[in-house]
Amino acid sequence: MIIVMEPGSKDEYRQAVISEIEELGYQAHVIIGVERTVVACVGHEDKTPLQHIASMPGVEQVIPILKPFKLASRETKAESSVIDVGGVLIGGQELTVMAGPCSVESEEQVLTIARAVKAAGAKILRGGAFKPRTSPYSFQGMGEDGLKILATARDETGLKVVTEVVSLRELDLCLEYADMLQIGARNCQNYPLLREIGMSQRPVLFKRGMSTTIKEYLQAAEYMLSEGNYSVVLCERGIRTFEDATRFTLDLNAVPVIKSQTHLPLIVDPSHGTGVWRYVTPMAKAGVACGADGLMIEVHPKPKEAASDGPQALKPDTFTELMREVRKVAESVGRTLPGAPEE
Amino acid sequence: MIIVMEPGSKDEYRQAVISEIEELGYQAHVIIGVERTVVACVGHEDKTPLQHIASMPGVEQVIPILKPFKLASRETKAESSVIDVGGVLIGGQELTVMAGPCSVESEEQVLTIARAVKAAGAKILRGGAFKPRTSPYSFQGMGEDGLKILATARDETGLKVVTEVVSLRELDLCLEYADMLQIGARNCQNYPLLREIGMSQRPVLFKRGMSTTIKEYLQAAEYMLSEGNYSVVLCERGIRTFEDATRFTLDLNAVPVIKSQTHLPLIVDPSHGTGVWRYVTPMAKAGVACGADGLMIEVHPKPKEAASDGPQALKPDTFTELMREVRKVAESVGRTLPGAPEE
Amino acid sequence: MIIVMEPGSKDEYRQAVISEIEELGYQAHVIIGVERTVVACVGHEDKTPLQHIASMPGVEQVIPILKPFKLASRETKAESSVIDVGGVLIGGQELTVMAGPCSVESEEQVLTIARAVKAAGAKILRGGAFKPRTSPYSFQGMGEDGLKILATARDETGLKVVTEVVSLRELDLCLEYADMLQIGARNCQNYPLLREIGMSQRPVLFKRGMSTTIKEYLQAAEYMLSEGNYSVVLCERGIRTFEDATRFTLDLNAVPVIKSQTHLPLIVDPSHGTGVWRYVTPMAKAGVACGADGLMIEVHPKPKEAASDGPQALKPDTFTELMREVRKVAESVGRTLPGAPEE
Amino acid sequence: MIIVMEPGSKDEYRQAVISEIEELGYQAHVIIGVERTVVACVGHEDKTPLQHIASMPGVEQVIPILKPFKLASRETKAESSVIDVGGVLIGGQELTVMAGPCSVESEEQVLTIARAVKAAGAKILRGGAFKPRTSPYSFQGMGEDGLKILATARDETGLKVVTEVVSLRELDLCLEYADMLQIGARNCQNYPLLREIGMSQRPVLFKRGMSTTIKEYLQAAEYMLSEGNYSVVLCERGIRTFEDATRFTLDLNAVPVIKSQTHLPLIVDPSHGTGVWRYVTPMAKAGVACGADGLMIEVHPKPKEAASDGPQALKPDTFTELMREVRKVAESVGRTLPGAPEE
Repeated sequence: MIIVMEPGSKDEYRQAVISEIEELGYQAHVIIGVERTVVACVGHEDKTPLQHIASMPGVEQVIPILKPFKLASRETKAESSVIDVGGVLIGGQELTVMAGPCSVESEEQVLTIARAVKAAGAKILRGGAFKPRTSPYSFQGMGEDGLKILATARDETGLKVVTEVVSLRELDLCLEYADMLQIGARNCQNYPLLREIGMSQRPVLFKRGMSTTIKEYLQAAEYMLSEGNYSVVLCERGIRTFEDATRFTLDLNAVPVIKSQTHLPLIVDPSHGTGVWRYVTPMAKAGVACGADGLMIEVHPKPKEAASDGPQALKPDTFTELMREVRKVAESVGRTLPGAPEE
Repeated sequence: MIIVMEPGSKDEYRQAVISEIEELGYQAHVIIGVERTVVACVGHEDKTPLQHIASMPGVEQVIPILKPFKLASRETKAESSVIDVGGVLIGGQELTVMAGPCSVESEEQVLTIARAVKAAGAKILRGGAFKPRTSPYSFQGMGEDGLKILATARDETGLKVVTEVVSLRELDLCLEYADMLQIGARNCQNYPLLREIGMSQRPVLFKRGMSTTIKEYLQAAEYMLSEGNYSVVLCERGIRTFEDATRFTLDLNAVPVIKSQTHLPLIVDPSHGTGVWRYVTPMAKAGVACGADGLMIEVHPKPKEAASDGPQALKPDTFTELMREVRKVAESVGRTLPGAPEE
Repeated sequence: MIIVMEPGSKDEYRQAVISEIEELGYQAHVIIGVERTVVACVGHEDKTPLQHIASMPGVEQVIPILKPFKLASRETKAESSVIDVGGVLIGGQELTVMAGPCSVESEEQVLTIARAVKAAGAKILRGGAFKPRTSPYSFQGMGEDGLKILATARDETGLKVVTEVVSLRELDLCLEYADMLQIGARNCQNYPLLREIGMSQRPVLFKRGMSTTIKEYLQAAEYMLSEGNYSVVLCERGIRTFEDATRFTLDLNAVPVIKSQTHLPLIVDPSHGTGVWRYVTPMAKAGVACGADGLMIEVHPKPKEAASDGPQALKPDTFTELMREVRKVAESVGRTLPGAPEE
Repeated sequence: MIIVMEPGSKDEYRQAVISEIEELGYQAHVIIGVERTVVACVGHEDKTPLQHIASMPGVEQVIPILKPFKLASRETKAESSVIDVGGVLIGGQELTVMAGPCSVESEEQVLTIARAVKAAGAKILRGGAFKPRTSPYSFQGMGEDGLKILATARDETGLKVVTEVVSLRELDLCLEYADMLQIGARNCQNYPLLREIGMSQRPVLFKRGMSTTIKEYLQAAEYMLSEGNYSVVLCERGIRTFEDATRFTLDLNAVPVIKSQTHLPLIVDPSHGTGVWRYVTPMAKAGVACGADGLMIEVHPKPKEAASDGPQALKPDTFTELMREVRKVAESVGRTLPGAPEE
């Protein structure tokens, strides 16, 4: 931690800062520059007790040096993690695709989609039984009946199931039916939920919040790792910016940045990231090209009848075409995508 | 709802849109312009069933016309609401100030602050017993012991108590001790929590999320109103932008915008909004000048020893000075602030 | 400048960084922490030659310590500057209001407005003769004829004139007619224009860019000061964020931040900042409450006939009411506003 | 254009709106809904005279329907444009790569880079002779001497030359030496410069502003097209968001969005877009995967000695590796990249 003193600040202020640092058990190193004096603070790794120095008189700014997450960091574990979701691996050389409807609407709907996405190469079925909707008057999900339908689809197709946990209340129910728990963007910094899911040991698909910096996102992931759950798969799904041609701005820069900072796998969700079905395939290809370990794609047999997020869902045959195009890009960057080889 | 057709799109596409609208029980009005054809859709007020039209062939865009919140809207209730928190009124001619530490740390700390802020004119004591912290390794709050300390301070000073509910799990505990429940920025779109608090009938201090648009914010408030809880006080506390000179960008534009759209009262939190104690007083004055119904201010007897957010807390005497300055601004805009008159 | 080495980076990398620093004539101080080693760099104030160290092997990050602007800084000149625009002072105890139409449209229009805003207490007349419009098919301004009309209004009313210079080409013409040159938000980082205006010695109204950080903004102002023009008045006029209820997000936090960092005066433009006339008066009051030295307000006798930006312009009588309300707020914060006293 | 009336607004207000529309020569169609009445306005394509209706009494909002750009639109010209820069084509099946240093520093530097990037498959040499720098105390470019060096490099290597025009003043000089003029991000909405370059007929590389929406960006391009210059190549180079792990947020969503709205070619600049050399290659691959027509890449033989933007420049051998990797991705999406085939 580096403490920068204001120019011309009194010696007694600097002395007070040094005393404070030493009282708290750290060592202070003073460096006198031409225009600024800085005090570097060395000691045990937790610098939290020093934060208040920012409000001491004569202090201009306090600059932290250490990364604020540890277990998720590549410094702690250099090799990339591979997460096992009931036998489906995420983070290896083979890409993993999760696909399905935004909301579970009926058994027929889910089975139709499940068969189609499996045939195209997806390994995990997504579907929401509890929906966090912007308006209280919108469809809120089928609840446990929806979870049962997902389980039925798993039994029939062999796909694994991921579904969103929207609150602690539904956690046990979701644990009963799902192979992987999804934490949605709006819950990215819902720390009590993260802790609880951290204790559950179930693999997690953890979406980035729409205004969460990469640093905060990895700190939030740390909540789960610090409870002992290391099976965390990250997911870039779009951030909020001034641009309104897309619903969110899918931030693909986050892919190389996150892959360089953490050993956890990372997938990309171009359906929510763009909000427009026409842009899903190009952004899926881009995500794979810059290093994502997989994709999450919304598929609906009849997008015009979807109970939620219809405009961003792909029809099954468009999804099959997406998989064919993504497969070529995957191979061009040394990855593979399961499914029928190109004829 | 207005559906804009692509230029040169086939007549059959337009016909399909019209059929769809009519099948769903609405009426379609076609207006043929020089370059675009639009289809206006009229019928009962819920237009949700029509959303999927955005993905029909030949459709360029779908433009909603109605405001997506109803009970919170001034259209539904034109006169401003005044919320009663155990006898303290929020939303009337008199401004209401909530003040206290970020986190409850000890009985002595809380009592010292409570007495000081009461003397300066605050009516409600704030203090966190459960803290949602960015890092899992930071102090997480005193829990029920903290709530008990707040209750003790209420008994001694007569101040009402507001405290943050971070998850459903702590809701019953907070209901037992607090006069008003706070929903933090990170839970602004945590709909299950909003619903539950909506059912509780306890007054709510509801903070805007750091990337929540005003429209989404009022829709989120609607979750509580639609469960029957009308005692909702809104709170602007800073949005996330590219500017990093302040921790967030306190969005005071939201004050006149929100006051024109909803009858609910709105206060401003310049402590979290700026993150820097030096800017708290000027922004508090600005918030009152543009129409806020009150303030939430962080106060700590020794900011340098605060367990969280020290750099943004005011010392009691700086808070007293803030109240003195704000009182003058309040009077200049026809409002009053309780407390000792200026000598 | 602080150089942070990657954890576990080789000694030879650190040695290379030190050699580089010393070769360039600075001194290096090494501080070995528990998890990170940092190299502090001390020497003459210009650290530009050291920037490339960020890309040397083993370097994690490079952190600058100094503020990147000098002449504009309060460190260089602690007392606030007062700028003289033909006898009208900006930055003193008395607030200065600039008002007028977005575009000059006719002599009658300008004279009507000029008389009205003068009567209400404005000291400077604004009006655009050259308009930078988003669409090439929009009205582009009256050019020199517009400047002549502004000069006529000055002769008749005694108001000083500020007008926007949109490019080097119009600079000489604007110098001939205007008392103060305005640099618009889109030219905030148009450095060749800033240099040239810096050489002109004419007082400048310098608007913040819509995505310019405060640090960059003050660096841009430095371009003019470094050419010898110290008569620079800053202007906050809204930044671009995700919120779309207002055209821009007027960033009032910038007022106390900028006032603490620079001695230059700062005014606020709530007309462009919000884009909606209903919000102009509340935000004008807020701007004055948090410390602005004045206001820029758009006024049009018939906003519905305005050639540009009609929806944000005030009618003359609404402007008079704004001045009356702002005057009270000004007095509550120890400032004055010229014009008729409240009866 | 759709005018939405406030709920419960008086009939006379609606009548006034209709009269206004008809007086201006358009036709008004009234549609009475359950909660809102809207007035649709039909007539000739320019709706500018109607904008002020937004501030008429009883009007809630005015919604434009038409795209605000015309010549750049795919509605006007459906097939993609291919721009010819002295024989190098941009926008066809073959990708075009522009590479070179941020600033021209010496003949030796430029020649070394030019030979290297040509060998790797680049067709156009980039290099700045006039540099718009954030600080007035930073290196500002070599001026005409720099342009001469670029011309020498063209003569020797056959590469075409693109260089930035920072103001009208340097335009003639740049026209004398460069095959293609670059308009930098800070000048994206510098309309006088755009008009002048529009008159010049020289091919243009036109960078998106860091806070310019896609709609505004295409409107700005329209300034050049409307002056008769159709040889405009667009360039996504990063927008400003809250995320600070990268210098800007390269917005690749803009690639499919822009390609669907305009016939103009679009390239991607991952060097400025990320600001970090480690992320340049992955983002270059992503840009090509989602449909960009080429790349602009900063290359410097000794990034640690670069006079500007060193941390984002690639060394020649890293650039060669980038080209090899991008070539594979290009082929996977049906494009080609010139240069030595993979052995």
